Amino acid sequence: MNRPLATTERQLARPRYEHRGIDFGCDYNPEQWDRSVWREDVALMREVGIGLVAVNIFGWSELQSPDGSLDFSGLDEIIGLLHDAGIRVNLGTGTASPPPWLTTRHPEILPVVADGTTRFPGGRQAWCPSSPVFRDYALALVDAVAERYGQHPAVALWHVSNELGCHNALCYCEQSAASFRAWLHARYGSIDALNRAWGTSFWSQRYTDWDEIGTPRLTLSTRNPGQVLDFSRFSSDELLAHYRAEHAVIRRHSSVPITTNFMVTAHIRELDYWTWAPEVDVVANDHYLDHRLADPEAELAFAADLTRGLAQGAPWMLMEHSTGSVNWQPHNLAKAPGQMIRDSLQHLARGADSICFFQWRASVQGSEKFHSALIPHAGTDSALWREALELGAILERVAEVAGTRVVADVALLFSWEAWWATDAENRPSSAVSYLDQVWALHRALRATGAEVDVVRPGADLTGYRLVVVPGLHLVRDEEAATLDAAVAAGTHALVTFYSGIVDENDRVRPGGYPAVWRDLLGIRVEEFAPVLPGQVLTLESGGTASLWTERMVARDADVVDRFVGGPAAGMPAVTRRRGADGDGDAWYLATLPDEASLTRILDDVLRAAGASRLADAGRDVDVVRRAGAGGSYRFIINNGPDDLLHSARGVELVTGEIADGSVRVPAGAVRVIREDSSS
Amino acid sequence: MNRPLATTERQLARPRYEHRGIDFGCDYNPEQWDRSVWREDVALMREVGIGLVAVNIFGWSELQSPDGSLDFSGLDEIIGLLHDAGIRVNLGTGTASPPPWLTTRHPEILPVVADGTTRFPGGRQAWCPSSPVFRDYALALVDAVAERYGQHPAVALWHVSNELGCHNALCYCEQSAASFRAWLHARYGSIDALNRAWGTSFWSQRYTDWDEIGTPRLTLSTRNPGQVLDFSRFSSDELLAHYRAEHAVIRRHSSVPITTNFMVTAHIRELDYWTWAPEVDVVANDHYLDHRLADPEAELAFAADLTRGLAQGAPWMLMEHSTGSVNWQPHNLAKAPGQMIRDSLQHLARGADSICFFQWRASVQGSEKFHSALIPHAGTDSALWREALELGAILERVAEVAGTRVVADVALLFSWEAWWATDAENRPSSAVSYLDQVWALHRALRATGAEVDVVRPGADLTGYRLVVVPGLHLVRDEEAATLDAAVAAGTHALVTFYSGIVDENDRVRPGGYPAVWRDLLGIRVEEFAPVLPGQVLTLESGGTASLWTERMVARDADVVDRFVGGPAAGMPAVTRRRGADGDGDAWYLATLPDEASLTRILDDVLRAAGASRLADAGRDVDVVRRAGAGGSYRFIINNGPDDLLHSARGVELVTGEIADGSVRVPAGAVRVIREDSSS
Amino acid sequence: MNRPLATTERQLARPRYEHRGIDFGCDYNPEQWDRSVWREDVALMREVGIGLVAVNIFGWSELQSPDGSLDFSGLDEIIGLLHDAGIRVNLGTGTASPPPWLTTRHPEILPVVADGTTRFPGGRQAWCPSSPVFRDYALALVDAVAERYGQHPAVALWHVSNELGCHNALCYCEQSAASFRAWLHARYGSIDALNRAWGTSFWSQRYTDWDEIGTPRLTLSTRNPGQVLDFSRFSSDELLAHYRAEHAVIRRHSSVPITTNFMVTAHIRELDYWTWAPEVDVVANDHYLDHRLADPEAELAFAADLTRGLAQGAPWMLMEHSTGSVNWQPHNLAKAPGQMIRDSLQHLARGADSICFFQWRASVQGSEKFHSALIPHAGTDSALWREALELGAILERVAEVAGTRVVADVALLFSWEAWWATDAENRPSSAVSYLDQVWALHRALRATGAEVDVVRPGADLTGYRLVVVPGLHLVRDEEAATLDAAVAAGTHALVTFYSGIVDENDRVRPGGYPAVWRDLLGIRVEEFAPVLPGQVLTLESGGTASLWTERMVARDADVVDRFVGGPAAGMPAVTRRRGADGDGDAWYLATLPDEASLTRILDDVLRAAGASRLADAGRDVDVVRRAGAGGSYRFIINNGPDDLLHSARGVELVTGEIADGSVRVPAGAVRVIREDSSS
Repeated sequence: MNRPLATTERQLARPRYEHRGIDFGCDYNPEQWDRSVWREDVALMREVGIGLVAVNIFGWSELQSPDGSLDFSGLDEIIGLLHDAGIRVNLGTGTASPPPWLTTRHPEILPVVADGTTRFPGGRQAWCPSSPVFRDYALALVDAVAERYGQHPAVALWHVSNELGCHNALCYCEQSAASFRAWLHARYGSIDALNRAWGTSFWSQRYTDWDEIGTPRLTLSTRNPGQVLDFSRFSSDELLAHYRAEHAVIRRHSSVPITTNFMVTAHIRELDYWTWAPEVDVVANDHYLDHRLADPEAELAFAADLTRGLAQGAPWMLMEHSTGSVNWQPHNLAKAPGQMIRDSLQHLARGADSICFFQWRASVQGSEKFHSALIPHAGTDSALWREALELGAILERVAEVAGTRVVADVALLFSWEAWWATDAENRPSSAVSYLDQVWALHRALRATGAEVDVVRPGADLTGYRLVVVPGLHLVRDEEAATLDAAVAAGTHALVTFYSGIVDENDRVRPGGYPAVWRDLLGIRVEEFAPVLPGQVLTLESGGTASLWTERMVARDADVVDRFVGGPAAGMPAVTRRRGADGDGDAWYLATLPDEASLTRILDDVLRAAGASRLADAGRDVDVVRRAGAGGSYRFIINNGPDDLLHSARGVELVTGEIADGSVRVPAGAVRVIREDSSS
Repeated sequence: MNRPLATTERQLARPRYEHRGIDFGCDYNPEQWDRSVWREDVALMREVGIGLVAVNIFGWSELQSPDGSLDFSGLDEIIGLLHDAGIRVNLGTGTASPPPWLTTRHPEILPVVADGTTRFPGGRQAWCPSSPVFRDYALALVDAVAERYGQHPAVALWHVSNELGCHNALCYCEQSAASFRAWLHARYGSIDALNRAWGTSFWSQRYTDWDEIGTPRLTLSTRNPGQVLDFSRFSSDELLAHYRAEHAVIRRHSSVPITTNFMVTAHIRELDYWTWAPEVDVVANDHYLDHRLADPEAELAFAADLTRGLAQGAPWMLMEHSTGSVNWQPHNLAKAPGQMIRDSLQHLARGADSICFFQWRASVQGSEKFHSALIPHAGTDSALWREALELGAILERVAEVAGTRVVADVALLFSWEAWWATDAENRPSSAVSYLDQVWALHRALRATGAEVDVVRPGADLTGYRLVVVPGLHLVRDEEAATLDAAVAAGTHALVTFYSGIVDENDRVRPGGYPAVWRDLLGIRVEEFAPVLPGQVLTLESGGTASLWTERMVARDADVVDRFVGGPAAGMPAVTRRRGADGDGDAWYLATLPDEASLTRILDDVLRAAGASRLADAGRDVDVVRRAGAGGSYRFIINNGPDDLLHSARGVELVTGEIADGSVRVPAGAVRVIREDSSS
Repeated sequence: MNRPLATTERQLARPRYEHRGIDFGCDYNPEQWDRSVWREDVALMREVGIGLVAVNIFGWSELQSPDGSLDFSGLDEIIGLLHDAGIRVNLGTGTASPPPWLTTRHPEILPVVADGTTRFPGGRQAWCPSSPVFRDYALALVDAVAERYGQHPAVALWHVSNELGCHNALCYCEQSAASFRAWLHARYGSIDALNRAWGTSFWSQRYTDWDEIGTPRLTLSTRNPGQVLDFSRFSSDELLAHYRAEHAVIRRHSSVPITTNFMVTAHIRELDYWTWAPEVDVVANDHYLDHRLADPEAELAFAADLTRGLAQGAPWMLMEHSTGSVNWQPHNLAKAPGQMIRDSLQHLARGADSICFFQWRASVQGSEKFHSALIPHAGTDSALWREALELGAILERVAEVAGTRVVADVALLFSWEAWWATDAENRPSSAVSYLDQVWALHRALRATGAEVDVVRPGADLTGYRLVVVPGLHLVRDEEAATLDAAVAAGTHALVTFYSGIVDENDRVRPGGYPAVWRDLLGIRVEEFAPVLPGQVLTLESGGTASLWTERMVARDADVVDRFVGGPAAGMPAVTRRRGADGDGDAWYLATLPDEASLTRILDDVLRAAGASRLADAGRDVDVVRRAGAGGSYRFIINNGPDDLLHSARGVELVTGEIADGSVRVPAGAVRVIREDSSS
């Protein structure tokens, strides 16, 4: 009855990456070490259970000389060693960063930032995504690598470039401007259409010719939001075009699956992965806990659900995460004992069938020398290595989970376009950020035990019991309509403030917010009334809220809660339009309730929607089920400080114990129950 | 006996804008809408009482094509529609922002910031004030517009450009450097004189030729303060020259009054409006509440008094404010119900005879789409529109106030040059900002019921009972002398710390601060001793203070209060030189007392000065009187959360009730009493 | 038995600056004043006791015209006046800042910052240290000045440039890049060696030719840390080369000692003064209290000890400090009454034999007009001047101290290279800064009464009872070995966390931290585990700690204290390897204890080491001894708010009183005891 994320025809038609049970993998950068270390490394990989190794990620400057000649001897050797050990290779195209001789010869490759100044070599990704010179050199390298290894039996996966757009997503150089113009021409056809889309009649911005248009470089005032939004779209497309170009070259030589590592995480927002996902043969993600956030583990859970959404529900690959600290945050915290295993299984619970790490052996030089690795600076006589051994063993024990899927009654709409439009320069409140709103709802849903698919706006929603729409500021008309259709078919909806305000072109829909869902929700918002950060709003129910109020009328909806004070005192804070004739209910949240209140509201909404939930979940306890033809597996992930007893019946795979009614889950640990069919 | 701000001969000689009662007006940007909306808009303007509409503010890219041809059809139509409806037109010259074709053709127009990088089109005001190319194109447009509409009967006012200098006041390009050199040559005559004025003998900065001088671009260390100060003067003058040039072109075709909209507000400091005010035929101001400040309403009251000062006491025009939130602050708060009316009447009470709004109909695209308007996105079925209708009705009811003037016993000296010199790079304490000091004194004066004229240093002060001089760091010798003259004639003075320190060339006057007023005040300050932000200083009186102390000797003054601790423990904090032989008293404040202490001190000072005050004023209650030949009007503005009773006798114009001893002023409301002559 | 800092052969071979007792001196910039003032100034200098005056510091634009001609008339006169008054001259070469005509003619001299934009004239030091054009012009000026005054009897010291590198230490222009390449070539010989040193195999950064290498301009990601580190070394060397070039020119004309003013202070880190110190004929330092710090006086004490270390224990010169506030901090606090004297004597106690001030007479114009001076704006009728007179008298009374030396049992290792490597872009915790760690240890040592030499890593340490090594992240192998050698010879050691991690090339030593001292300390650290700022860690001893923990094993050491909670709960926080066979003990601190705990730990460490301490020292009381052939002098510096009694026997030089068992030291005052030989 529930409707998992669908697999498209397109995905079925292409090569498919075959996970071997749950793959345990890592990045390996052997160029850093004497060849004498390589054999020891491969032996240790076998010991710990590594089955998939990414190499040649940053290989360019090792492989190619300024005269164009290529030296594959090192790569030949390492691939051979891995293959001999039965380890599969995830082969990088090596184009992630150009070698110094290339940017010296062609400085026009270098990226330009918004103030018009150049950014220089010395780090990584010092290239403009629109540079034809870079593209030519990169594709020539890909051609040579793919020709050499396209039929190599060790190669199980191609890895295009690396973290495309991590640093260089937005380039403002003249070449980028030319490409942007071509992209705009293709999008709009006529300059008049562009003028209408960007609203250039305001502030004397009307263009008369394509050549007048540039990238949205810094202005003295704020910039045209349509131009900025389209530049984000263009920039995502431009890097996707680079991916496609490398993909096409590889396909000339190899039928092995191809992918690139996404970065579904808090601080990367310039790539619209909804448009990228159909282009990869397996969805792969890099994820690092972000200790700048209030709840890093909640972000992990969301990122994993979103990655599964990108994979249309199919198993995906965690291409990179870390055994311990990273090195690029202000304060790089170590992981607690067991946390590496817990986080690995959290990803697994939410659909990952490969658990890979950056990187195999900790660098002793360079920018990432304080980034953790499977083999730390301390070597194998270390707690980290012992935990890696334990993880390897666990991944073998849970291998049967591979191929199963999460089944959710609840969908949450997520959109990069909405992110871009929400976090724009001039907006009602800079304290209202898109991700915060999304996370707040996702976190509260987790605490209720609901399983959640993260879904692209526009997808068919009729199979879900409930669709949650947090702050979806930009939504296209046709995307909005799918929610109406689902509600008409009995799905319930929960929409939060600032949703549905602007259309595809960032144009406000007038007539009372959110115009596109005004009837669906039975409300009409007259005016936004955000409050200063720190101001606490009291609700009639006794709960509190923050950040936002609005002045609205509930025209065809029950008022579930009201603001007691603040700028919208006496006005509705939570409404519910009760569905008639088989329609679902449509709830609206006009503020951000505190966590407990939000969880309580969601409890009501889920109950009304008849959405299934997994018992015993809570703020510190994730409960997730993966199921398939072979059985059903329940993951209990204890993020809290106390041991807990969880009702369960079946075989616990991590410990091998039989759960005969309950299972004890120690603080910080994970248990995986192969559920009895009766449970 | 009191001496209001005088009207100069020059003002009398020029066209005068005739307010019609209290004008209710707005900006209108019809280019954003289908022509079908225009007729509906004009009808609604009539309904709400709009009498003055600004158009063509950002018209350039609509009017002119790259080949130079002009299309006035849209502007013809809208002016015609307005005229037919009896609505007067405030006609923009349309030069506020160059069209993209112009900056594409002439990129040398683009402004350059202090690090030497360019700022680009895509926002507004992307032009260098010193660009002759821009000037030529702009004046050609003005010529065409003025020729076409110079005799049009609808045109009641010309509106030059828009918010000149809001973003582009300081340009550091080579063209600006050349203009700066010419300006310096005119100011100093010889390079030696410039060297003396800037003190270039320090740090090896002596110039030998004009060509060696540039704009004060970023240096590795701090910059020469004389150069920076003169660059501010130059930049203000350069934009004023632009205004004058447009003015001259208009005058060739039209005798209608001309103005431009000032921005007397917290975050705009680069225009010295004392030099601008004599050039406009009516002083017009744009004012927006700034919720980044601790007390936005206090800033509003000060800005209104300062605007009246610029208008020499004559009625002025509030050219822009907002019905609700703006869109460019970090957190854009909505106005409380009634606040739009209250703020409108606060401006009116302090001298505005026109109350205009940006803008008529809320944009649905572009940078300002979340800026409020008279017709919000929600349309006319909205509380905002209903409050606009109420405001329209009130403005009709108080129309008789038009033409009256505020009469004040107290003057407060304000100077943009002092602002520039105070908030410089290297100074005793960056926590001491000029505006904060000015606001503190103005706010305390409001709480005492004193009416305050804000006056330019150098004006004749002899008519006032009290002159307040907050932190006037830079004061010219001849400006300082006017205070001595007034005190000699019986006016009292209150000077606060850091006043009178430097002369016109930012040169410290040695011999003990503040040398220029040392005798006047009877004190001698040896050393500044600021304290860290957050440090609380205790005074002998029991009050507290912050930010500043100094080590001083009261040579010819009574010590009114002393520092108990801190770096000037035991030294005077407040002094009073008692005037003899008909002189006024001269008070000095060596610190920033807390609000209650400051109000108490001012109470003593005002009493000693014999300055009249309006009863029942307070921290939350403004009481202001406007008076003229036809009568006297008392405004009671209740900014507080509670209703209050105010003693009054007369007709209350907002409600039409008779005040027979008292009038009830609800929380957040304003009442306007036509005072019985006996009261 | 104790081993003071040694004087090198090189120092003995060169001209030596002869202090006359304790020199009292100042900078004098007479160009700012009419010549009429000069005679008055010289008379006042005599009155106050000034014996050494620095002139011509920023003389270039006064001396030289664009045609190259020189006018020495003013300088002749001022030197003559000083000489006639018996005042010695510290003669600036005048090259500190180029005149405007030079940078106008040669804009390629201007410095370039990391984003590639230029910084402009208008301040000071607007020159690239690698500019050959600047060098040529500067040396020509030096040649002329030295030729003219090289034999002048007034000249007692040459003052090269001024605060070299204060603003322009790092230049990223193309000329700097060329010089950087030459420097790298000299350092590494081959491009392969450079690739190995910088670890360029990571991130595809391998260089194939010197021409591919640039300065470490801004990248989109983080930069290669080896490149950044070498750029710091290069930049320090490049300015030192400038110093040497001026030095060589002067030596052609004069045998008078030569120096330049160092800036051993919190915010200057780009000059490795260990390499500079051997090049100057007397070590001179500029020091200003930094009120941005939590404990400015502690930084002063450390800076003075470090300056003495640079001077190898010999008397040094305080070339600049201030009588009161400076002007370049956010909040420029005045000094408390007596604080100028106290700070002067704090420097003196720690080895300064000259106490000089910037500047003689307060400027009334320019960037430094609010910087205090010996003659303030208020003139000589001021407390500041009276305190200057008192200081002059005291310096005469303590003149006999001149030439004596501090004798310390404790050495603290300090390294600019470690500073650079620690405070790099990507590191475990940005909250852990090198100076903070150094200051914490130095401050706790002061509170124990220990006297501390600050010593360069690599120096022979065998003479000390205890060597303290705070956070010495980068240490060369051979430098590390000197600690082992000292401990083997009976010296005790205290090493704190993050020490010994990387080698000369910023390459991590693997195998468990800190590999280079793992055996010395008997520990092995597996993993860093910093904590967020603000998190308080509890120790088993009851103390607290912050910032850092690590997961370690005490393999051959006693565990003195443990973490109770946090990421390393239960693991060692303080360890002690007890020395056998005459070895000293080796202590290790794995965290930053609170101040009281740290002092307690140091108390134990010092007692175990048998290090001598001066009695009655404490958090607010510095006690320092200088001794020589002529006697022994104890300084008691009371930084606290209360008077205190200090045990002493001898003559107190400040007051002339006899201390017969004790001396009273008033709050904020200093007393200097000529100790009876018995005491």
